[in-house]
Formats: sequence, structure tokens, C-alpha cells
Amino acid sequence: MRTGQEQTAATAFAREQGERFVEELKALLRIPSVSTDPARAAEVRRAAEFCADELRRIGMGHVRLWETATAERPGGHPLVLAEWTGAAGKPTVLFYGHYDVQPAEPLEEWVSPPFEPEQRNGNLYARGAVDDKGQMWMHVKALESLFAAGSGRLPVNVRVVLEGEEEVGGEGIAAFVREHGDELAADVALVSDTEMFAPELPTLCVGLRGMIYTEIEVRGGRTDLHSGIYGGAAPNAFVALAQIIAGLKDRDGRILIPGIYDAVEAPTGAELEAWKALPFDEELYRTTEVGSPELTGEPGFSVLERTWVRPTLDVHGMPGGFTGAGAKTVIPAKATAKVSLRLVPRMSPAETFAQLQDYVAKLAPKGVEVEVRMIHSGDPIVVDTENPYVRAATEAMHEVWGKGTVFVRGGGSIPIVGDFVRVLGMPTVLMGFGLPDDNLHAPNEKFSLANFHRGIQSLIGFLVRVGAHG
Amino acid sequence: MRTGQEQTAATAFAREQGERFVEELKALLRIPSVSTDPARAAEVRRAAEFCADELRRIGMGHVRLWETATAERPGGHPLVLAEWTGAAGKPTVLFYGHYDVQPAEPLEEWVSPPFEPEQRNGNLYARGAVDDKGQMWMHVKALESLFAAGSGRLPVNVRVVLEGEEEVGGEGIAAFVREHGDELAADVALVSDTEMFAPELPTLCVGLRGMIYTEIEVRGGRTDLHSGIYGGAAPNAFVALAQIIAGLKDRDGRILIPGIYDAVEAPTGAELEAWKALPFDEELYRTTEVGSPELTGEPGFSVLERTWVRPTLDVHGMPGGFTGAGAKTVIPAKATAKVSLRLVPRMSPAETFAQLQDYVAKLAPKGVEVEVRMIHSGDPIVVDTENPYVRAATEAMHEVWGKGTVFVRGGGSIPIVGDFVRVLGMPTVLMGFGLPDDNLHAPNEKFSLANFHRGIQSLIGFLVRVGAHG
Repeated sequence: MRTGQEQTAATAFAREQGERFVEELKALLRIPSVSTDPARAAEVRRAAEFCADELRRIGMGHVRLWETATAERPGGHPLVLAEWTGAAGKPTVLFYGHYDVQPAEPLEEWVSPPFEPEQRNGNLYARGAVDDKGQMWMHVKALESLFAAGSGRLPVNVRVVLEGEEEVGGEGIAAFVREHGDELAADVALVSDTEMFAPELPTLCVGLRGMIYTEIEVRGGRTDLHSGIYGGAAPNAFVALAQIIAGLKDRDGRILIPGIYDAVEAPTGAELEAWKALPFDEELYRTTEVGSPELTGEPGFSVLERTWVRPTLDVHGMPGGFTGAGAKTVIPAKATAKVSLRLVPRMSPAETFAQLQDYVAKLAPKGVEVEVRMIHSGDPIVVDTENPYVRAATEAMHEVWGKGTVFVRGGGSIPIVGDFVRVLGMPTVLMGFGLPDDNLHAPNEKFSLANFHRGIQSLIGFLVRVGAHG
Repeated sequence: MRTGQEQTAATAFAREQGERFVEELKALLRIPSVSTDPARAAEVRRAAEFCADELRRIGMGHVRLWETATAERPGGHPLVLAEWTGAAGKPTVLFYGHYDVQPAEPLEEWVSPPFEPEQRNGNLYARGAVDDKGQMWMHVKALESLFAAGSGRLPVNVRVVLEGEEEVGGEGIAAFVREHGDELAADVALVSDTEMFAPELPTLCVGLRGMIYTEIEVRGGRTDLHSGIYGGAAPNAFVALAQIIAGLKDRDGRILIPGIYDAVEAPTGAELEAWKALPFDEELYRTTEVGSPELTGEPGFSVLERTWVRPTLDVHGMPGGFTGAGAKTVIPAKATAKVSLRLVPRMSPAETFAQLQDYVAKLAPKGVEVEVRMIHSGDPIVVDTENPYVRAATEAMHEVWGKGTVFVRGGGSIPIVGDFVRVLGMPTVLMGFGLPDDNLHAPNEKFSLANFHRGIQSLIGFLVRVGAHG
């Protein structure tokens, strides 16, 4: 079959079967595979089996769950592995996606329940709709369409690896890459877990921030104490913790941890110039996406620089003490802050963690004990854009969207991509179809159904091109 | 019956019936009357009815529940009212206590469950054991013993008012005092909701701190945002809140709210001298009561001064954001801090709240909106010690404990006592039998059973003396 015919047939199949694809995705979205919640471990596994079953059904071979749980890490979730290597002499593409999702809280802010997918206004609303079940499903459905068009054959060799721990740091897949990296050997890795810069604007992400996610725990008295009786003598763990947090960042948004900016690699002048041409309206971004009275962040850098190529520090929650309705007059014995830093190229998670630990110890006021724990971490990456796979991706997207592709960075982290780049030495194409207002990690997460279908078409075009040029 | 015989007979009755008294108290402690929890409203009412039934049974008249709930305050808990006015020409004593309790969380730190009272090492362990069900029960049982010894008569006229909102600010009883204060008219108010300075040391509390309990709420983005995508541009509500909290108190423990110390009335030189003679071992207090590496608080004042006659500020919890196990990379849209200040004589709750509000507004960094809400408040008080009721109390306690009484202040707050003193103009005797290690408001709250029984004897002696001298 000629390349053009193959693509046309696969695309026609995807169009015809589009509604079924969405119904299948809804079934996957109904599984609450929240990887951070130990009580949901069985659901996470159910999502893995759902994906494995479908990969098997569409024609992938050697489909299996790889158990990542070990004695030291009993809560590890399985990898889903699959391959089809019948395209002798053709390049091998590694598909990566994740079937786990973020917690859905606060539940009361969802218009429709997070695990009961609902179509509204051309979008599919559910936790994981875009991050990453919906985008992962595009891959599976592109493969199914190509299998159908090619009478059970694909234009390239394919390996698939899906993980269930992306939202909790991806330790399982990282260990697999270190120990069994050869099983993932490929000419290029393809990842759809990023977003388009704007609607209708095909986008390749060529860099991601890394991160460290930590907990800072402050302990004061031996137990919770009555604030009337002991207020004025007993240390207050929350006041101490607030003093520490306030010391980590100045009021302008600069991180105060000594040395934190030392390793930061600046983007090239050409990259900075290209970003200036992107359709970015800061006021629109503030009002429609962020929704705060003002934007904040490190002075002297644009919003895109601050969110793409500058390290940042955020507090995600401060558990401990009394958080119920009304009043309880307690001096809490313990207070914790969940604190993460996003890292940019040339920063090291280990070194950043050490800098944070040292500085928190210096900031701790008297009367309390402080501990900083690492929960998980991931390296920042930059992708080389000078390769045929990036060209195949831009051509495929041009065909579907009728527009040139923009190159952007991503502020988020996909820890395993760093390993693909650094450990496996693979060029990686980050071709994502989320939109800026998709509410990732927030209530009312959604995925544009138009993007879901066009994404499948783009992926078909990409694979056909890689097969033709390989 | 001669006074001495009456006291002897009542005391003998209390001794004989002591075990029954404890069993009854246990039944009351099994009712989880947590007033701050709307879900527990029926339990709070059940505790009120339990007390009313017993007051009726022992011989008190006109026993009734007074509903404090109104259209504006639908969650108000009832007052329990009772009286016996058959002692013509004798003084009238107003008994005050509260049947509501603090929340029991964190539950996992209780050795025995908070609402399943357990006797261990001569103590009764349960939420409310000492604060205030156990101490309130002493009053009821002293009255029962005197009724028994006096063939249904008491040596004084008695009014009883028990509230179910002491732990949530006591708005209901405050309104009752304002509108129906005449129903509580008495020559003296007697309150057992304080503690002894040390075991075996009879103590009268002659001053209490007031308080304001507030919530500081910070709002940043329109919804929770992904910290990878928006970190560096979106305001972080917790970081802003930490900056505000850190600005309220310096690292040495001084409150930084402008004007906060202006109205503070210093104790007299004689009071300060007397406190120096109290058996107070700061190192023992630090290790056995507070249990922190160092004590903290305002420089230049002793521990007793800092906890009795200096204003303090505490943070009780910081709800919002992600507080579950593991990691969620969210920039929370909202963060709240539960913050209270303890007030000392001549400070005004309203003025202090205004000072806090103004200063929080000044401390707020850009990009966020801040609101400070008052949850409840109470005035500080000082009790005049030059009256026959204080003498009757010290004599009664000397008889039971064989030691002179010490006068102390209390760091905690009993909002209604301020109203008794200021609105009703009553001398108030704060005769409490808690101990410093009773874990008020904390896990493993307890009450010494020896103190329970001796407290009943002390109250019998007090009432007989007031009746004899009146």
C-alpha cells in the first residue's frame, strides 16, 4: 500500500469510528486511578488492565503488565508494555503515556462529577480527560486505525510503555528504564502529555521543567496544647512554619534559597525572540486562566520566561492542626507544608534539595525541630529540534491544522522524559493537544473533542511519515 | 441542723456515693457533645438533657432548657437553667458550667477512645473529663449531697446555668445575660472551669485572658492551578498567607500588630511578687508539659507573665490546598489560617480585631485578596479578691486540702465570666480543680478522681460557709 493511501485509509477509519473511540475513553475515565491514594490502588490496576486489554485487542503483541512494586516500594503501580516489531528495516517509535490521574479534590467545585465523564460544549469533562488518559488514548486509537488500514500491519515498529505513577513521581518506570532500558530501545520517543500554546496552533514542546516535591515538617510541643494555658510559652508549629515559608521567597517572588539560581541555563536569544512572536496576551491570561488581581513571580522576566525557564517555588497545602469548621483553641504539636520547586535546565534535583534543606534549617526559629523530606523529583530537559522526527511531526500537524508549528517550553514536569533523553539517549517528540484552559490538576479538567480527533489524525500522519522516511 | 453537722453529713454522703458519682459522670462523658461540629448538634442537646434530668432528680426546681437558637443563629445550643430558692434570707449562689466539649482530633493519639471514659492511675480519661463536664458534675453532686443532708433543703439559694457553647464562644449565654440577666441574679457566681497551680495546692483564679478567634482567608487564582504550568506567574495563596502570618509576630515572639500592647494593664507589684513565690520550675514545665526544645514567647517577661498577663497570638491550623498523603502539584486558589489572640485586662476584642484586620491588609502581598473574619471573642477579666465569698472559698479549701490558697491568673478564656463581672456586677469565684497536665483541648484529656472527690467536698464547705455567714 502506498504511504498516502495508507494514511487516507487510517484517517477515514478514525473518522468513522470516532464516536466509539470517545465512548471507550469515557469508560477508561470512569476508573478513578488516583495514584497518590493508597486506597485507590486496585482502581489504578484496573486502569492498567483496561489499557492492556485494548492494546491486545487492536493487534499489539507481547502485551503485559510489569510489576514495579518491590519490598521497599510495596505501593508501586504496574507498567503496561506492548510491542509490534513487524516492520523490518523501519524505525521504531516508543509511545509513552500514563493512565494514572491526579486526585479530584475539591470535589464540590466540579460541575459534573470527576469520574463520570460528561460531554459539554464540544469538550469531554473528567479527571484525566487531557492528563493523560485522553491523550494516551489518541495513541492507542491512531495505532488501531493504522492496523485497520494496513490489514494488521503498521508503517513502523512500535513499542508502548504506559505508567501508573506519573502523578507521584514515576519511580517505577525510572527503575525500569535503568534496569531494562533495552526493552524500550527505539529511534524516537513520542509523548502526548503537553498542550498547544493556543487553540488551533500546532505546538511542539521542546523543554520541560524538572521538580522536587518535598514536605517540611515542624514539631513544637510534645502534644497539642491549649492555647489559653500555654499561649506565650509554647512554640507554635504553624507560626514557625509560616516564618520558614516566608523566608524562602521574598514578597516580589524571588526565591531566597542561597545558590538556587546559580546553575540556571538561560534560553538562547533566538528562542527568546521566537517566544515574543507567540500569540500571548498577558491580560487575557491573567483574567481567563489565572483569575487573580495581579500576576506574580520573579521580577525582570516575562510570564513565559517565569513559567518555562526560571525555577519556581510553590506551597500546595499545610496539613496539621485544626482545620474543621469553627474554632478549636489548640497550639498544634506539628505542622507540615507540601513544598515543591520547579527546576530548569542544568539544575539538579539532588543539589536543589540539599540547598533547600540547609536553608530551612537556618530559617527555623527557636523552640521547634524541623525536617525536610523528599517525596519525589525529576530532571529538567531540553529537546534537540534538529532531527527528522521533529520534521515529521511538524509536517503531520501542518497537514491536519493547516498551520506552521511553534516550539515552546513546558513549565510542568514529565520525569520519565528526562530519562528517555539522558539514559536512553533518544530524541523525544512532545506532541500534545491539550489547551491552556483545560484545568489540568484542577476541578473541571476537560479535553477538546476536536483536538482528540485531530490529534489522532496528526499521530497517524506522523507515523506514516516516519515509516516512509525511515 | 447546725452548720457543722450539715457539712459533715453532706460530706459523708458524697464519700459513700462517690463511685456512683463517677459512673454517672462517665455516662455524661460518653455523649460526644462537640459544640463546634454541626453534625454533633443532637449529641450536644442530649448532654443538655442529661444534665437537666439530673438537676431535676436531685431536687432542683424550675429546671428547663432555654433555646438560644435564633433565625440568625440557627445552630445555637440550649442553656440548662435551674433554681432552688427556699433559703429565705440567705445569699444566692449562681453555679456556672458547660456541657459542651472541644473536638477530640487527632483521634489516633488517644490511648483510650475520647468518648469511652476509662479509669487509669487514679484518673478518668475522656474528652471533657476536666473541661468541663467533670468539674460541672462536682457542682451537681455537691448540691445533691447537701440536699440529702438537709432533707431536701440547701444552705443557700442556688441558681444553675449550664451552657453548650463555651468552646465556640458562648454567644447564646451572652445574649441571655444581656436580655434575661435578672433570671441569673445572685450574690456570687461560682465557676469550676480552671485549674490548680500544682497538685495539692488549692488555687483560686482571679483573672482570665480574653480572646478573639479569627480566620484569615487568602484568595489567589480563580481555581486551583497546575504548579508546573502556572508556577512563576500565579499567586500562591499559601505563600501569601505564610508571609502574612510571619509578619504578625517576630522570630522572638513579639506581636508586631501596631498598637497591640498599648492598652495592656500591668499586674501590681504585689501580684508579681506573689507569683515569684509559686512553686514553678521552668525546666520541668518545659520538659513535662510543653515538651519542646526551648520555650518561646515575648522577651523580657517570665513564663507566668507571658501566659497570664501578656497578649499572645497563635495559629491553630491552615486549611486549604492539598493535605492528603503524597504529592499533588496544585497552586491552591484559597488558603485559610485560624488565628487567635489572647487578650489581657483593658484590651478590647473589637479594637484588637480592628488592629489585626488593618495590619493584615497591609501585610498582604500583591496578587491576592485577603479577608479577616471574626469567629468569636471574649473580654479579659480581673476578679476583686476582697469579698466574703473569696474568704469562704479559701477557708473551705483549707479544710479539705490542709493548705493555704494561692491566687493566680488564668491564660485561658471563659467568655461568660466577663459578662458576669461586667454586665451582672457579680463577684465571681473561680475555684477549679484541674491539674496542669490534664491535657485540656488535647488528646488524652483527664481528670484526677481524687480532685473530683475533694472538689465536691470543697464545694460543700463553700456553700455551707456562705449560708452560715450570709
